[in-house]
Amino acid sequence: MTVGLGDDAAVFAPGHAMEVVACCDAMVETVHFLKSTMSPSDIGYKAVMSNISDVAAMGGYARYALVSIAVSPKWTPEECSQIYDGIYQACELYGVRVIGGDTVSAPDALHLSVTVLGEVEKGRAIRRSQAVAGHAVFVTGHVGSSAAGLHLLLQKDRGNGEWRELERAHQRPLAQVAAGRLLLASGACSALNDVSDGLASELWEIAEASQVAITVDSTKIPIREDVRAYAVQVNKDPLEWAFYGGEDYQLVGTVEPGRIEELTQKFAAADIPFTVIGRVEANREDGESALLLIRDGTQSPLSKAGFNHFGRRG
Amino acid sequence: MTVGLGDDAAVFAPGHAMEVVACCDAMVETVHFLKSTMSPSDIGYKAVMSNISDVAAMGGYARYALVSIAVSPKWTPEECSQIYDGIYQACELYGVRVIGGDTVSAPDALHLSVTVLGEVEKGRAIRRSQAVAGHAVFVTGHVGSSAAGLHLLLQKDRGNGEWRELERAHQRPLAQVAAGRLLLASGACSALNDVSDGLASELWEIAEASQVAITVDSTKIPIREDVRAYAVQVNKDPLEWAFYGGEDYQLVGTVEPGRIEELTQKFAAADIPFTVIGRVEANREDGESALLLIRDGTQSPLSKAGFNHFGRRG
Repeated sequence: MTVGLGDDAAVFAPGHAMEVVACCDAMVETVHFLKSTMSPSDIGYKAVMSNISDVAAMGGYARYALVSIAVSPKWTPEECSQIYDGIYQACELYGVRVIGGDTVSAPDALHLSVTVLGEVEKGRAIRRSQAVAGHAVFVTGHVGSSAAGLHLLLQKDRGNGEWRELERAHQRPLAQVAAGRLLLASGACSALNDVSDGLASELWEIAEASQVAITVDSTKIPIREDVRAYAVQVNKDPLEWAFYGGEDYQLVGTVEPGRIEELTQKFAAADIPFTVIGRVEANREDGESALLLIRDGTQSPLSKAGFNHFGRRG
Repeated sequence: MTVGLGDDAAVFAPGHAMEVVACCDAMVETVHFLKSTMSPSDIGYKAVMSNISDVAAMGGYARYALVSIAVSPKWTPEECSQIYDGIYQACELYGVRVIGGDTVSAPDALHLSVTVLGEVEKGRAIRRSQAVAGHAVFVTGHVGSSAAGLHLLLQKDRGNGEWRELERAHQRPLAQVAAGRLLLASGACSALNDVSDGLASELWEIAEASQVAITVDSTKIPIREDVRAYAVQVNKDPLEWAFYGGEDYQLVGTVEPGRIEELTQKFAAADIPFTVIGRVEANREDGESALLLIRDGTQSPLSKAGFNHFGRRG
């Protein structure tokens, strides 16, 4: 970095033969979080993490962050300082440096808008639009955990800490940079998204951008045991959380079928769960994209509608 | 650009031998603007322009923008579309492309946070911290016009359009990219800032970053005739607007004294007003920076306090 904080703008050069990856996500109080579901440091952490996840979904890694925060007098200086603690915790985990931003007053709700700048090898960024018929559909890690955690956090009775890991899944998700780098290095990945809005929404984005139909097998969706157990306790369908929950920041994408064994080994060696959950079908003659769920032996279309926080569309 | 809108992140490479310049500014309803002072398109325009101005203050030029907008149902779809019109108008003026962002709901005030990414020649970015004793202090264009415009816009009676240019100065300022490029090319500029918070605040930043004392001659400050005339009419001191107004987006900085004649000619050829307004004094023995105003034959210290929009600190 040539110029960091404390000037009109920051200045840096990407590494040799690298391009810059740039993304921006906003988080708004009452829309994306409540004081009751996220601590101030969780809020800061997650605003950064959602962007690092977007960079991971291009096969890149994050390097710099610009943080724009608008805060009302309702938030104490102590809480503001904790928001920054969370921002720096997320940055430190992934080697990201805060190089700029803006701190302003807000009349009411807290707004946090973060831009993350990363790097990816020239011409190698993994897009959404190159999924090809016959390719396998995979997802990293487990999905639905964050939504289960949010469900729990919205209850009056949260138990005696036995579901603490679910809360953490919602408050402190991890971006899958290592998985993205592994996929990019393999050259086998034809489309990639991060799970910010739920599997259904992400798979629809790939289906539409690539103009393909995708089928997904309900029995293959990787859902954690504690999520399943909690779902039984509260009488919910964990698949609902997986498909329409979001904020798991796992990667979902498509890969050449002949490379699955090799990728499975590489992911196992890296200790990252990697699960094939479906298939890209032949491109439809009518050019229409589709997303179909196979459940109990029948295929049915999966709607797009993603996660709807607190009744508002984010 | 390799990847634009419509994926998880955008991807681009800076030009050969160029570095990336990155900055981020937020604008919040009731804090930075009111519906009565700025039209929706003015708001979008200015949120982009303030960032292009930051890039200009490094000697660079802007290339890309990421726009994060949080909007409540109080704003109609028509108004939202006009905000984007203003964003694109500002971008078009400077060849900037919108490559990403986030559109979210807000419970109340409109928030607009823009990141602009630009380019500058490797190792050549002009910082705030290299001002040297003996260098001349200059400013481009005219200052105080935006503050005069805001004063007018806050009045019930705005006249019959005779002050329309003052309103424009507040609502549609222009970033001084050409001036910044000229200064960078000259190699004569030792420190540079854009006038976003008023001359006093910007000169203080240079004085502190460079650890120097700066003296400014009140008779040299370039203030437009219509600003002076309006100030007389409303019984205000136009210097107050120049020093504590801000949002003129002119450039203020320091240059080698031996290069002033050449720069004056080059700026004249480019049709950009260029005015020497003061001098960098010998670095103080106590290491303390200072800003002094020469007015009516006496020197007095100028306080830092910048522009205070609508009674809140932005």
